[in-house]
Amino acid sequence: MKAHIITIGDEILIGQIVDTNSAYISKVLNAIGVSVYQISSVQDDRAHILESFAFAKANSDIIIVTGGLGPTKDDITKSTFCEFFDDELVFNQEVLDHVEHLFKKYVGKPLLEANKTQALVPSKAKILKNNFGTAPGMWMEQDGKVFISMPGVPHEMKGLMEHEVLPSLKERFHLPYILHKTLLTYGMGESSIAERIEAFENELPKEIKLAYLPSLGRVRLRLSTSGAVKEDVDAAMEAQLEKLVSLVDDIFVGYEENGPLEVLVGEALTAQGKTLSIAESCTGGSVVQRFTSNPGASKYLIGSMVTYATQSKVDVLEVDKDLIEKHSVVSAEVAEAMAIQVKKLYNTDYAITTTGNAGPTKGDSDVPVGTVYIGIATPNGSTAHHFMMGNHRKRVVEKTVNKALELLHEEISKN
Amino acid sequence: MKAHIITIGDEILIGQIVDTNSAYISKVLNAIGVSVYQISSVQDDRAHILESFAFAKANSDIIIVTGGLGPTKDDITKSTFCEFFDDELVFNQEVLDHVEHLFKKYVGKPLLEANKTQALVPSKAKILKNNFGTAPGMWMEQDGKVFISMPGVPHEMKGLMEHEVLPSLKERFHLPYILHKTLLTYGMGESSIAERIEAFENELPKEIKLAYLPSLGRVRLRLSTSGAVKEDVDAAMEAQLEKLVSLVDDIFVGYEENGPLEVLVGEALTAQGKTLSIAESCTGGSVVQRFTSNPGASKYLIGSMVTYATQSKVDVLEVDKDLIEKHSVVSAEVAEAMAIQVKKLYNTDYAITTTGNAGPTKGDSDVPVGTVYIGIATPNGSTAHHFMMGNHRKRVVEKTVNKALELLHEEISKN
Repeated sequence: MKAHIITIGDEILIGQIVDTNSAYISKVLNAIGVSVYQISSVQDDRAHILESFAFAKANSDIIIVTGGLGPTKDDITKSTFCEFFDDELVFNQEVLDHVEHLFKKYVGKPLLEANKTQALVPSKAKILKNNFGTAPGMWMEQDGKVFISMPGVPHEMKGLMEHEVLPSLKERFHLPYILHKTLLTYGMGESSIAERIEAFENELPKEIKLAYLPSLGRVRLRLSTSGAVKEDVDAAMEAQLEKLVSLVDDIFVGYEENGPLEVLVGEALTAQGKTLSIAESCTGGSVVQRFTSNPGASKYLIGSMVTYATQSKVDVLEVDKDLIEKHSVVSAEVAEAMAIQVKKLYNTDYAITTTGNAGPTKGDSDVPVGTVYIGIATPNGSTAHHFMMGNHRKRVVEKTVNKALELLHEEISKN
Repeated sequence: MKAHIITIGDEILIGQIVDTNSAYISKVLNAIGVSVYQISSVQDDRAHILESFAFAKANSDIIIVTGGLGPTKDDITKSTFCEFFDDELVFNQEVLDHVEHLFKKYVGKPLLEANKTQALVPSKAKILKNNFGTAPGMWMEQDGKVFISMPGVPHEMKGLMEHEVLPSLKERFHLPYILHKTLLTYGMGESSIAERIEAFENELPKEIKLAYLPSLGRVRLRLSTSGAVKEDVDAAMEAQLEKLVSLVDDIFVGYEENGPLEVLVGEALTAQGKTLSIAESCTGGSVVQRFTSNPGASKYLIGSMVTYATQSKVDVLEVDKDLIEKHSVVSAEVAEAMAIQVKKLYNTDYAITTTGNAGPTKGDSDVPVGTVYIGIATPNGSTAHHFMMGNHRKRVVEKTVNKALELLHEEISKN
């Protein structure tokens, strides 16, 4: 089964928003055995939407459409659906009741005329209930091809996918089992890895695909396969994983499907009953934010600081002022002192710190842009590492966060 | 001039990565007067790439292709280009010299065989120099249509767009002037705004388009237009902006084109010579991260804390333990005390704080999931505000960050 995702809305095409919906839809479709053939972002324009519907129908079995369902005048999806399906809009009492219920509960004001139009739906559509908003989802069929329309607001779309679309697709189609396993590796480039695993790659059975996914200081290696029988697919994958992991054992830190590195670190800390604190300078909160964006961080993360100004490192973190003057605020000595201090202040088992210059201009230190020190304190002592992270602000920050997580993972794995 | 952006790579279609490249490319193309007709993400598959090339060529003048240019075996873009253009790969000494230079400078190891293949390029292609990586960009033409191929690694693609692609497009085509202005509004829903500005919308000249972009506690209103003469376009836009702003004056905080709200706050603080500190609980570093992701934050941001555990609010932030026990850690009293304390510790003019329960489970407090207090301390005093932010962790955090920025903006604007 192949799907085509169509997102409608000029805001994607003028670069005002990033299309995160399609990534989510692709992921959950893959998980139930539907492969995504193409993602298309098209204009809020009748002719263009019709053209993309026809193109998608020719190539795919399931066409998922998001966007263009709001109550305001720039939304034209519904009327275009009517044109494509030779249908007309009819009034749906169930949808109106739901819209009225939402207004009573959350808005506390009477319904506006614009909201009432949301109860107009194509007569041939099966309605999919939107628990988180006023615009309903719709399911229509033509020549055995399924068209699904959902609003573009991410949490409304996600609710519809989870509660309505995925269960209905599983019921409607007989779907295969798709499996991806992605090895996270750190510290070696794409080409070097490719050279090292060349023989493995040449001998891969053709139903298993290997992809290299390089990004800022790490390379992910993804094996993908599918089949009718889950047990057979799992066993075939397991056999290849065993070979591949043994070849990259020194740079392998875990599987992405088990969660990103910060989740692996958090799980290891929780399992060991250990705690963490963080002090950041150049990364400006990006390290702590990576941890707290996952539920459960409160089990091991006690607290953190962003000591952005040099004075705050002295006043609040209580790093020795003479040490800073002697070695500069961007130095191994200060990174290590920050780790010792924040560990003490928050009374934790582990601490990780960053100090550096992410650019674009030099800050409170004379070091070149891209210079970074990462400090670590553990139950067994403390240390600091030096890196040059290039001269692009966002990448310096992201590389530093990745490296800090990697160093912390390494330290925790020792225990 | 219309462009079609084609991204090649299974990682987007299985939902492993979000396609941020296309948003960037769309934005910079728009800025030089090229409108993006469609964005398509297609599989690493010869036939599919060829089909998408033909479709794009039929509808657009400029076809921008990213991805599939790496040194490893899963990359097939170049051979498919040869097939489409009836061309063959030839060896390019200039590219090889550049690859060797990069290896000598950054890798310090001899070239691998895989890297040498990057010097093979279609004979009809004009080479675009990639300053940040080994895979060159390529420019090819057919029937007056321009095809541009770039690697998918974001910073390499951005470097190529900025230094090679945009200047060449401006030289090759006579481009119009495109203008977008986006009003940031807070505190009113999409339908209510639509009702209020209905007359304005009905009277808009047809060459100016209005779009509503709602998201988590705010609605952005975008006016878009284009034309041959910059001065005329600017004047027509200015006339409409004046009307629109006067209609939404009470909810208008600024133009998105001037930067996001945290940039407006930062600029106001810098202009007033004032400083800021932050203490976060439920937002876990997302507030400080919003500020530090922009260059120049060090001019006004002294430091921040994430006091995730209750104990850390007492030990490090020095909030009175009895106050926490009396009112609960998620309370107006604690939010305000956090603001007073962090302002004092970092010795700043303003402070903003968050405490709440973002879920999914109850934390150190008995309040329901979604309960949030935001505390503010200013040169004139301190206060706290109460909100219910729903029950979805990520949205609770994002809404809280937006609200904190909005409250801070309001306070700073008073001075």
